[in-house]
Amino acid sequence: MQIDPSHPRFKSLKIREKLVWGIKKGLTHPAGLLAHGRGEAFDYLLGEKTHDFAKKAIEAAGAYLISAKNPIISVNGNTSALCPNELVGLAKLLNCKIEVNLFHYSKKRVVIIENYLSRVDSKVILRSNKSSKIIFPDIASWRKIMLKEGIASADVVFVPLEDGDRAEALIRLGKKVITVDLNPLSRTAQTATVTIIDNLIRLLPLLIKKIKKLKMVDADNLKSLTINYNNKTCLNNSLKLISDRLKKSG
Amino acid sequence: MQIDPSHPRFKSLKIREKLVWGIKKGLTHPAGLLAHGRGEAFDYLLGEKTHDFAKKAIEAAGAYLISAKNPIISVNGNTSALCPNELVGLAKLLNCKIEVNLFHYSKKRVVIIENYLSRVDSKVILRSNKSSKIIFPDIASWRKIMLKEGIASADVVFVPLEDGDRAEALIRLGKKVITVDLNPLSRTAQTATVTIIDNLIRLLPLLIKKIKKLKMVDADNLKSLTINYNNKTCLNNSLKLISDRLKKSG
Repeated sequence: MQIDPSHPRFKSLKIREKLVWGIKKGLTHPAGLLAHGRGEAFDYLLGEKTHDFAKKAIEAAGAYLISAKNPIISVNGNTSALCPNELVGLAKLLNCKIEVNLFHYSKKRVVIIENYLSRVDSKVILRSNKSSKIIFPDIASWRKIMLKEGIASADVVFVPLEDGDRAEALIRLGKKVITVDLNPLSRTAQTATVTIIDNLIRLLPLLIKKIKKLKMVDADNLKSLTINYNNKTCLNNSLKLISDRLKKSG
Repeated sequence: MQIDPSHPRFKSLKIREKLVWGIKKGLTHPAGLLAHGRGEAFDYLLGEKTHDFAKKAIEAAGAYLISAKNPIISVNGNTSALCPNELVGLAKLLNCKIEVNLFHYSKKRVVIIENYLSRVDSKVILRSNKSSKIIFPDIASWRKIMLKEGIASADVVFVPLEDGDRAEALIRLGKKVITVDLNPLSRTAQTATVTIIDNLIRLLPLLIKKIKKLKMVDADNLKSLTINYNNKTCLNNSLKLISDRLKKSG
């Protein structure tokens, strides 16, 4: 269906259409649309804007990712459908791989997403059929399947739009988790090492730009950026902002 | 896919699955899942609970619907997939019809929904092929198609999960609009005569119960319930509640 450009929520409706297109192509799972809608609501409460707490988290995320020995990018259907070029660009910049990891898992969908991202650049895609699978039994979803040469052996995992259950498991495994989540109250947001409270579409170009700058910074200064970063403060600032905005709207 | 009952968001994931099932049956449009996810986020902020402001709105909604000359229930794919029995039960109680009205319109989907609800009770379903269609050109979506013997001639429209654009148009047409919306900031919520800030699944049984009670009340008292109801106060109370809850979470 053609959406009328005069509709006041035209932009947001267009992004929705992209995810609906993703379903038709087999990239996105229908339940992923629900998760996106949930994020949309929080973005709405944030005023659809990248705030200072997100900028601070982006800087810390950049520092962690550059300093990592084995960074990895964990993508799902939504992230792949929405930002294929930016995700591949980020992987190239970090010289790391992208691993497909799904909550609503099917072998077929993993391959469809791998192929879709490979069209941008196949070299950065870690193929599920070329790496052993490791199953972490304490995760209550199919996100428990991870690749040996990917997430399983990574020290820093960049995983936008994560499930809370797996975020906790990755932290228990001693990994640093960098996530993107619009809901500051989610278990993922509360658990991750760095939580960027922002819309993935808005933030990825900013993260890429920041990493390019941080590549000029020496290891000691990168280290202090990670040490001085306080995720709890960023989360609290985002909650305060939403709370104040709601009060003003009343 | 089977969702593991040990997953902390099991209940909410099961409702999502119902909507995904709705897509397979042709009832739900994929974009409806996004809208549901958006509502889910606000429900989460409300603590997934029916608050006093919602109970007040339910009472006013009941009074308006009982006092109406030509009430109508406007349903879409989501509402039909989630609460078919309760919607039909409400229509029978009010002795009114249910009209299918869709944002992502297709003739085929209208008929699928009409058939689905007819399986509960066909007498309360206003069939789109048995009433003339009226098109309201100032609505920027397919919700502009309304049935002459239905919404077009109704004085009170009960429309859970409405689009803001059409809510405004219905009000301009002089109708009373009773809506259900989990987002107190949405244009629908801000525009409607009565906005019930609650989850449709939780509130429909409460509304039905309240209407049964209000049927014993005389016309003057019903009138005063509608006159004394202040939608703006309810919206503000819901914003305050969410705001306070967010602050406490920080």
